[in-house]
Amino acid sequence: MKPLNIGLIGYGFMGRTHTNGYKRVNDFFPELKHRPILKAVCGRNEEKVKEFADQWQYESTESDWRDLIARDDIDAVDICTPNNSHAEIAIAAAKAGKMILCEKPLALNPAEGEKMVEAIEKAGVANTVWYNYRRVPAVTMAKQLIDEGRLGRVFHYRANFLQDWTINEDLPQGGAALWRLDAAAAGSGVTGDLLAHCIDTAIWLNGSIKDVTAMTETFVKERMHNETGKKEPVTIDDACAFLCHFQNGSLGLFESTRYARGHKALYTFEINGENASIRWDLHDLHRLEYFDHNDEGKLRGWRSIHISDHDGSQPYMDKWWVPGLNIGYEHTFVHQVADFIKSIETGETMRPSFRDALETQRVCDAVLKSAASHTWKNV
Amino acid sequence: MKPLNIGLIGYGFMGRTHTNGYKRVNDFFPELKHRPILKAVCGRNEEKVKEFADQWQYESTESDWRDLIARDDIDAVDICTPNNSHAEIAIAAAKAGKMILCEKPLALNPAEGEKMVEAIEKAGVANTVWYNYRRVPAVTMAKQLIDEGRLGRVFHYRANFLQDWTINEDLPQGGAALWRLDAAAAGSGVTGDLLAHCIDTAIWLNGSIKDVTAMTETFVKERMHNETGKKEPVTIDDACAFLCHFQNGSLGLFESTRYARGHKALYTFEINGENASIRWDLHDLHRLEYFDHNDEGKLRGWRSIHISDHDGSQPYMDKWWVPGLNIGYEHTFVHQVADFIKSIETGETMRPSFRDALETQRVCDAVLKSAASHTWKNV
Amino acid sequence: MKPLNIGLIGYGFMGRTHTNGYKRVNDFFPELKHRPILKAVCGRNEEKVKEFADQWQYESTESDWRDLIARDDIDAVDICTPNNSHAEIAIAAAKAGKMILCEKPLALNPAEGEKMVEAIEKAGVANTVWYNYRRVPAVTMAKQLIDEGRLGRVFHYRANFLQDWTINEDLPQGGAALWRLDAAAAGSGVTGDLLAHCIDTAIWLNGSIKDVTAMTETFVKERMHNETGKKEPVTIDDACAFLCHFQNGSLGLFESTRYARGHKALYTFEINGENASIRWDLHDLHRLEYFDHNDEGKLRGWRSIHISDHDGSQPYMDKWWVPGLNIGYEHTFVHQVADFIKSIETGETMRPSFRDALETQRVCDAVLKSAASHTWKNV
Amino acid sequence: MKPLNIGLIGYGFMGRTHTNGYKRVNDFFPELKHRPILKAVCGRNEEKVKEFADQWQYESTESDWRDLIARDDIDAVDICTPNNSHAEIAIAAAKAGKMILCEKPLALNPAEGEKMVEAIEKAGVANTVWYNYRRVPAVTMAKQLIDEGRLGRVFHYRANFLQDWTINEDLPQGGAALWRLDAAAAGSGVTGDLLAHCIDTAIWLNGSIKDVTAMTETFVKERMHNETGKKEPVTIDDACAFLCHFQNGSLGLFESTRYARGHKALYTFEINGENASIRWDLHDLHRLEYFDHNDEGKLRGWRSIHISDHDGSQPYMDKWWVPGLNIGYEHTFVHQVADFIKSIETGETMRPSFRDALETQRVCDAVLKSAASHTWKNV
Repeated sequence: MKPLNIGLIGYGFMGRTHTNGYKRVNDFFPELKHRPILKAVCGRNEEKVKEFADQWQYESTESDWRDLIARDDIDAVDICTPNNSHAEIAIAAAKAGKMILCEKPLALNPAEGEKMVEAIEKAGVANTVWYNYRRVPAVTMAKQLIDEGRLGRVFHYRANFLQDWTINEDLPQGGAALWRLDAAAAGSGVTGDLLAHCIDTAIWLNGSIKDVTAMTETFVKERMHNETGKKEPVTIDDACAFLCHFQNGSLGLFESTRYARGHKALYTFEINGENASIRWDLHDLHRLEYFDHNDEGKLRGWRSIHISDHDGSQPYMDKWWVPGLNIGYEHTFVHQVADFIKSIETGETMRPSFRDALETQRVCDAVLKSAASHTWKNV
Repeated sequence: MKPLNIGLIGYGFMGRTHTNGYKRVNDFFPELKHRPILKAVCGRNEEKVKEFADQWQYESTESDWRDLIARDDIDAVDICTPNNSHAEIAIAAAKAGKMILCEKPLALNPAEGEKMVEAIEKAGVANTVWYNYRRVPAVTMAKQLIDEGRLGRVFHYRANFLQDWTINEDLPQGGAALWRLDAAAAGSGVTGDLLAHCIDTAIWLNGSIKDVTAMTETFVKERMHNETGKKEPVTIDDACAFLCHFQNGSLGLFESTRYARGHKALYTFEINGENASIRWDLHDLHRLEYFDHNDEGKLRGWRSIHISDHDGSQPYMDKWWVPGLNIGYEHTFVHQVADFIKSIETGETMRPSFRDALETQRVCDAVLKSAASHTWKNV
Repeated sequence: MKPLNIGLIGYGFMGRTHTNGYKRVNDFFPELKHRPILKAVCGRNEEKVKEFADQWQYESTESDWRDLIARDDIDAVDICTPNNSHAEIAIAAAKAGKMILCEKPLALNPAEGEKMVEAIEKAGVANTVWYNYRRVPAVTMAKQLIDEGRLGRVFHYRANFLQDWTINEDLPQGGAALWRLDAAAAGSGVTGDLLAHCIDTAIWLNGSIKDVTAMTETFVKERMHNETGKKEPVTIDDACAFLCHFQNGSLGLFESTRYARGHKALYTFEINGENASIRWDLHDLHRLEYFDHNDEGKLRGWRSIHISDHDGSQPYMDKWWVPGLNIGYEHTFVHQVADFIKSIETGETMRPSFRDALETQRVCDAVLKSAASHTWKNV
Repeated sequence: MKPLNIGLIGYGFMGRTHTNGYKRVNDFFPELKHRPILKAVCGRNEEKVKEFADQWQYESTESDWRDLIARDDIDAVDICTPNNSHAEIAIAAAKAGKMILCEKPLALNPAEGEKMVEAIEKAGVANTVWYNYRRVPAVTMAKQLIDEGRLGRVFHYRANFLQDWTINEDLPQGGAALWRLDAAAAGSGVTGDLLAHCIDTAIWLNGSIKDVTAMTETFVKERMHNETGKKEPVTIDDACAFLCHFQNGSLGLFESTRYARGHKALYTFEINGENASIRWDLHDLHRLEYFDHNDEGKLRGWRSIHISDHDGSQPYMDKWWVPGLNIGYEHTFVHQVADFIKSIETGETMRPSFRDALETQRVCDAVLKSAASHTWKNV
């Protein structure tokens, strides 16, 4: 078993999910020849980063990411910082020859993203972006079904990601906990945070997006800012919706918001094809809904496929428990670590790559520009 | 179009549902050659029976059922009175050569039921008992699927009928509105009222029941009686559950209660066969759930079949609207009237017949005796 | 009981649903002082219209709608013809002083609609348009909850109406059965047929729509035309989606299509407010989903309200059966007839009126123009 | 951080779930002062046990459980062997002063169980039995709601555990993989394997069971035996159902089977109280269904509570991710390890204890005896 020395930058929510992925992957994927080693975690607040290192058993800590990248004993750098530092860190890490696993969205905008892709491809280092929902077993199966041609010509793709956690006007913005509400740190609001997930999955399942017409809204116009201590204008989009055409001729509808009372993380998508349709919902991530028009007439109906009742033909469920017993959200990160290690071992390109994530970034950019200009925009 | 002159005895809840069936059947089953004519309705309270006749357009009223049966212009007698008068009325009607449509349960007990069957078969008159749930389109389709052999060997049958309307201790018992809470009028509580439905469907779908072990309970021991004006012991079973063996070797589980908070009329059944399983729920009566083990492995799942999306192979849905548009509870009675008229026109025996209902009565009787004696009872 | 003499023009699917409404209303709404009388039905094919009249018990037939309107014994004209004749018939009927019940959409376009409203208001005749989904009990309850202020500030409204019946390329267009696929007869495709329902409900529940950006698609470009016998270009929109702003500041998303495999009549809407959210689905029309943020924290969840379990505070369910027992699609038309008769008896304006339907027509028009021009359009 | 040295005996399915619990507990419960150390795993097949030790990072292996118990460096013995060795191992471990975590069911029968409880209580060692479903967060919340008195008087408790994995007659019995089909190793079939879970939860939530009437069935009478290589009679119960009375006066219905086509691990329970009802289903373990009769009349409905949307008042969910993001089956074992360690640290009795598990054993025994004798049995 060879070590794969991990250096984690940022230890927030995503730092936890990734770390859990590193620690568990060999228990469940014994065929791997590498074991991730939690070499170092990096954060500016020394006390907090040590606390995190203690809890999760990192061997050491750093307070400056440049120091972490400079270390010889780090093989792979995992970027879990706010979006406005992804580019600088990733480019430096690429130059240092490190493998890179970067949180989504790739960057603040396509211009940054292009530089990152250029750097990484020039350095030739292994890379991936954590669009983890591709590796929900039910979503992976949707991809299989589409690749097997079961849907036929696709007519419609619709997706939304609905949350409700920012309705309260007293919630502040900015700072370590709430940088997602501050466009300076996040680049955008729900577009980069939530729609980016929907777009990544959509491109993976249904191909490229051609053009978009979008609408954004900021429902709460001012919030206390954690860094200035004053009420400041809210700079992000609270909600974003867009219509689009896919290259394959199908129509797309996308929506995300943090103002949909009653939904915590309702990421759903549905694809309607000539022969079959598929839908999925993160709230019940272990089920795939499937309608097959080729079923016998009187017995046609949406099937609720409990993904644990697998037949061994999909890559993840036979690693876990037995039929009927669910896995959850965190497992998507274990799967992504497993596939990343496999890509190292086989030499195949890990997906989604930085280049894949750049395409998603470009769609996000077209969406934001369409909303700002009230016109259709090509991607 | 020939007239089928109806004489209705009793004008409570079931009087309404049957009358609606008579009035609507020719609009939706134009192939029928008979039209039900609402000739007379009979009830002891002259004012109320006239009010009912006015609302529903009956041509005349009677206050004594013997007078109604004596009329030459009545072809079919419909018995919607409390259970303790079914036998006397049905036997008299049979002697008068009338067709008979009798509310369920057939009688107070098997002894009464046997006399009724004897009378009706001796008279050779058309007859049926209103076990209307056989004619919910989804239930009818369950029967089709079973008859087509899709389930294979059956292992399990379970059914329940759960309500919650008698939890309140202040609810009185007895009288016109609440005779169902008085064993003198009803024969039993939930066993005859609710379980009888479950048993009729079960025998129809899965064959005869061999033996039972049962448990009953009366949760509220005393209630004000509407006829005496005093608190009296409650004589009915508030809840009843039983285990049984079917003749085909499968195991049965049945339960009914009026104390299941949150359920209004949760009549559900599920059948587990070697190759496929079926389940259904009256609360969503337009759906049939179906699991087929012969489906491709990774795509196995319970299908939710919206019964309106039919292929024309079942007898009722193409009479109504278009796919996606539901029918409801009352339509089962329209279907039963349609099938009754068809049986007259074709000479085929209408099911469920009095004889069918007698078998259900015998199971109810075995259940009540098992509960009273704490022993298994053969049917 | 006073007669309300009905003259029905057109006897297709909607002719059946309306007629059923007229025939059943007094059985279930005994407080009404008028009884609809099926005086005459009108259609160009004399044989077929007589057959319809026989089945449904109309007293007479006409083959020219002008003759029907000219009859003194007709109080109310019900227009169930293809959309391209609504305006001419309605204006003539108004001039003749008849009450008018018109199928939706009101007209081919707003210009026609304005003339109709002008005619009807000048004549001062009772009028309504059959946007029947307002009178699904669960939808009516949604309106109650909103009017009671339970949602607070509304952020999002989304609706779709998904069908799948035109995917087959061999389906022809035009003629008596398929005029909905011919823009000359229908005005538009899914926009007027399906989205119009969504828009009517939305305006009723959430107020006026300010501006829209839309996208339409015709997936099958040519179909055999029933009238020419040749392949002709398809002139309707097969699918239509739009984003919009409501006057109250909320964002709207609407979609309809006849190419959503697996959905027969999936009319759904969801409204997200500050304090509560509501959703509803025509496939399970007897349920209203409700989320109340004011519920105790750990017990918050979407409630599935079985509309039959009512407390008497809504206008329809206590007319029918008992809790747990469903009504269906056709009952919405009975309700609309009942409310129309009540409006005659009380003098209150019946809703939706022609004027209400004109607003919906204007939104449809803006949607179609936005899609054609690829720009945002004000309503 | 103090070590808690674990010695695991048996490394099958349960060996994996427990080991995962030990390895993850400190990542998510940082307040614990002990860290489980995977000191040794014991199994008779030396090659396989070493492979397991390698995969899961156990420090050493043993091939005789007596050697493991004899080791000074083991604090806690975890028994994951077939049921027929639980008693001998547990009694020896107690004598050796080890803490004991024993897989369920406790023993082959109550006589064995009594000796085990006696040994463990005499030794005064910490102990628990892995009835893990108590620690599904939704089930834990059900317990909270009941303890808060929200249900009022309880009328009904029903539970079932339905699987379908032994329908195939070609499946053999016995040996390492299929000892659950051999009564010599397992004691019973579904009664000890599945119903025991239902009974443990039921007693925890609803109190003791007084008497039972039961029915068992063996659908496939002979199977190839892995140890003899010949067709042998099947000695276990394939299915078991029973009715019962609880001490609190409520009625119980329980069923389990491995012949319910379409169900993989459908463990469900429902409790109907005077004021509220609760239901839960392992297939969607992250949801609790709740009906509260005290809700406003027109808004009463079953709530689907997504357990991730917690308010911090329950003990587990705030350890994991954020609202909307599910955990799964394996987390119940992490919770049980966490609570076991807390019990060591606080001195409070860990539940379920051996004594608790003995009560469940007694109910199982009464069930099997009732089925064999066709009579009611007291527990």
